[in-house]
Amino acid sequence: MRRLKLVLEYDGTGYHGWQAQPGLDTIQGTLEAALSRLAGNCVQVMGAGRTDAGVHALGQVASCTAELRLDDRALRRALNALLPRDIVVRQVETVPPEFDARRSARSKTYRYTLLVRDSPSALHARHSLYIPCALDPEAMSRGASCLVGTHDFSAFRAGTCAAATPIRTVTRAGWRPAGEFWEFEITGNAFLQHMVRIIVGTLVEVGRGKRPSDDMATILASRDRRRAGKTAPPHGLCLVEVHYGAGDAGRGGATP
Amino acid sequence: MRRLKLVLEYDGTGYHGWQAQPGLDTIQGTLEAALSRLAGNCVQVMGAGRTDAGVHALGQVASCTAELRLDDRALRRALNALLPRDIVVRQVETVPPEFDARRSARSKTYRYTLLVRDSPSALHARHSLYIPCALDPEAMSRGASCLVGTHDFSAFRAGTCAAATPIRTVTRAGWRPAGEFWEFEITGNAFLQHMVRIIVGTLVEVGRGKRPSDDMATILASRDRRRAGKTAPPHGLCLVEVHYGAGDAGRGGATP
Repeated sequence: MRRLKLVLEYDGTGYHGWQAQPGLDTIQGTLEAALSRLAGNCVQVMGAGRTDAGVHALGQVASCTAELRLDDRALRRALNALLPRDIVVRQVETVPPEFDARRSARSKTYRYTLLVRDSPSALHARHSLYIPCALDPEAMSRGASCLVGTHDFSAFRAGTCAAATPIRTVTRAGWRPAGEFWEFEITGNAFLQHMVRIIVGTLVEVGRGKRPSDDMATILASRDRRRAGKTAPPHGLCLVEVHYGAGDAGRGGATP
Repeated sequence: MRRLKLVLEYDGTGYHGWQAQPGLDTIQGTLEAALSRLAGNCVQVMGAGRTDAGVHALGQVASCTAELRLDDRALRRALNALLPRDIVVRQVETVPPEFDARRSARSKTYRYTLLVRDSPSALHARHSLYIPCALDPEAMSRGASCLVGTHDFSAFRAGTCAAATPIRTVTRAGWRPAGEFWEFEITGNAFLQHMVRIIVGTLVEVGRGKRPSDDMATILASRDRRRAGKTAPPHGLCLVEVHYGAGDAGRGGATP
């Protein structure tokens, strides 16, 4: 038996999210089916983060224990031959038995992409949120800056979130303009359900001038979900990288 | 009646190319159906370039004459509301009656994108050609440099090409590395059928060390299609921009 770490890229458009659910196409379910077929018995995987339906990944990480004769490189090829084209194994690594993709993760980086211009995109519609009006980048940057630190993020938490505590530590949060594409990147030790999408939905309202930028700090302090903005749709969101400590299993995720 | 110039972005994955064909989904056919519905009678469009099945566009240009009450901006919105999500009208402009998207074009720029890394991409598979082995960027740049100028491009021309002459003028051709994505951009007054795809297919063989870079000049001089490499697949190719003279109808295409 050996312990494996898998780094995955996927297009979440056609899936009901990461988490396996009976009768539904999910990333976890599809990956487990491919691994189980190669192993000849049932293999279960643990993912670093449970991405929502429609959310993408460049560097999701999964761990599992399996009896497989293929070496890491051959296993990656065999998995990619079995998986549909919208799920790709970027890396396979044999890791110490104590490695757990979720528990060993130190932090994760998510990216949310806006397309800010006057017409939608035919080529990038699946991976960005189209915003047909002007946004104020400075107000959005000011609004994002108050997120860094250890806070109670209850205001940016879905009503259905089952996390034991709403306290999270964000180490980095900011906008990176790349032409018509505006990328919001946020790194934190963990995230509440819909946290990034609610933050982005609120920051877009700031950018449109519907709220002042210092509203973000007020909303955060209120711990009241009703004060924050709409939840941005899933298709603009991507789990970019999962970070592990140097001794936990090498590099944590794929560099996009 | 008014003369219109339309700038279009499209994902060619689901279409049998630009050119209208009975019973097949094409970009031209889909655009004409939307325009005809708004006009209340049959509208025919002329495209600047006939992109092949599976080829994409960021700045294809089409012209037509139609009786439409909507102003340019409202027409763009109405068309985008009618068109499927993989075809987008970026710009509508009322132009002088003599404007013709094909005949007025001075030049066009195409881009071919390679993804050079050891695993395929789940997110970018539709718009790039996956190359799982190392390529020599300097050899590919040297190989591309001989294309600039006025030449007989018969060696880089499909057997089915119906153009009257194989003489074309290329003003710019080169590779632009962008991380794992390698972009080949070429600007010319016009292109023969499959010309860019055969050039890229041959340059990839140069990059893999299967041919020396000075083979490109020898192949070009031979005017023999059998000397060139394989035709690269369509999905890596994109018509980026169509260039018009300043007096012909403002800027020609969308900047990607």
